[in-house]
Amino acid sequence: MSKALERREKLRVDLIQAAERMIAKRGLAGLKTRDLAREIGCANGAVYNLVTDVDELVLRVGSRTLRRLDEALSAAVRTNDPSPHETLVRIALAYCDFAAENLELWRALFEHRMEADKALPDWSIDDQLQPFRHIYQPLGALLPKRSPDELSVTARSLFSAVHGMVALGLEQKLVAVPLPALRKEIAGLVRAMIDGLVARAE
Amino acid sequence: MSKALERREKLRVDLIQAAERMIAKRGLAGLKTRDLAREIGCANGAVYNLVTDVDELVLRVGSRTLRRLDEALSAAVRTNDPSPHETLVRIALAYCDFAAENLELWRALFEHRMEADKALPDWSIDDQLQPFRHIYQPLGALLPKRSPDELSVTARSLFSAVHGMVALGLEQKLVAVPLPALRKEIAGLVRAMIDGLVARAE
Repeated sequence: MSKALERREKLRVDLIQAAERMIAKRGLAGLKTRDLAREIGCANGAVYNLVTDVDELVLRVGSRTLRRLDEALSAAVRTNDPSPHETLVRIALAYCDFAAENLELWRALFEHRMEADKALPDWSIDDQLQPFRHIYQPLGALLPKRSPDELSVTARSLFSAVHGMVALGLEQKLVAVPLPALRKEIAGLVRAMIDGLVARAE
Repeated sequence: MSKALERREKLRVDLIQAAERMIAKRGLAGLKTRDLAREIGCANGAVYNLVTDVDELVLRVGSRTLRRLDEALSAAVRTNDPSPHETLVRIALAYCDFAAENLELWRALFEHRMEADKALPDWSIDDQLQPFRHIYQPLGALLPKRSPDELSVTARSLFSAVHGMVALGLEQKLVAVPLPALRKEIAGLVRAMIDGLVARAE
């Protein structure tokens, strides 16, 4: 790599890390490229030599968040009790804990919308699909008669239901719940959902 | 009421209705008081003689949305099959349909955040709690041993889970699902959750 390319690559990493810190601190709405440019020491316009646009920048930060989420879920899968039932409960709780500990970065994953008519790039789709494989495996063990397509629909529904509990539970809204109570509720409802899914599949 | 008060009240209703149309069309981020003032024919600053601030305006629109949601859920409760199990499924589907038909107004209910350190006014809290009573009743019939406090926690969890499925299903994201498939998934998961909750309570 030439010196110029090396320098550009280093600046690009600086930019993405600075954006990550800014979103973590101020939320997605607080991300200002002007402030980022100042922080990494380049001209305002030069930011767009490093990423195509703000969408790409936010998606790059999102990929970093998703990779850390993926590590947290992997750790939850590996621990102790290997029963698929309890593995799914641990995954749900690990998701809740990750969201609580990375509130603004996690929110940004869902708040961000591409500009109209712009498609998500393939690398971002891949990164967004990764965490689902953790749910998919234990669910397949519990519902062996379902086809891969049916399983992926069920995995998505289960994820969405847990996501809803986490999202509303952590919001500063009426449905806000203290974290220990929220974890208990999530564990209870995930166990109930899986019991019900397995019973109906028999 | 004096003529001046009458005129002010009419202008206030005009303002809230104009804000509702603007959110429905452009989303919460597209709400501009300058455009609203022009639309109802008053000076920019005069908007703040009608509502305290933008938070109040958004909450007033929210109360109208919640009232229409409440009507949709009431209709779902009254229909056909009186079994609490199926009533809960109908409520979940009515919620999904309402969100799909009122996408931006429904999103605004959840996207809106009060300015830091400002509390929600009591009238808005009341309006936000109303729709929960529909879930609370059939759930109480299914789980007769739970205390009112436990029931309201379970009602909130069930609502959050369904909300998550609707929210991610209707988003233009990876987990987006066509409406008929989403309705089928919601009905299936709600039945499974309730089966599981009832089985564990016995």
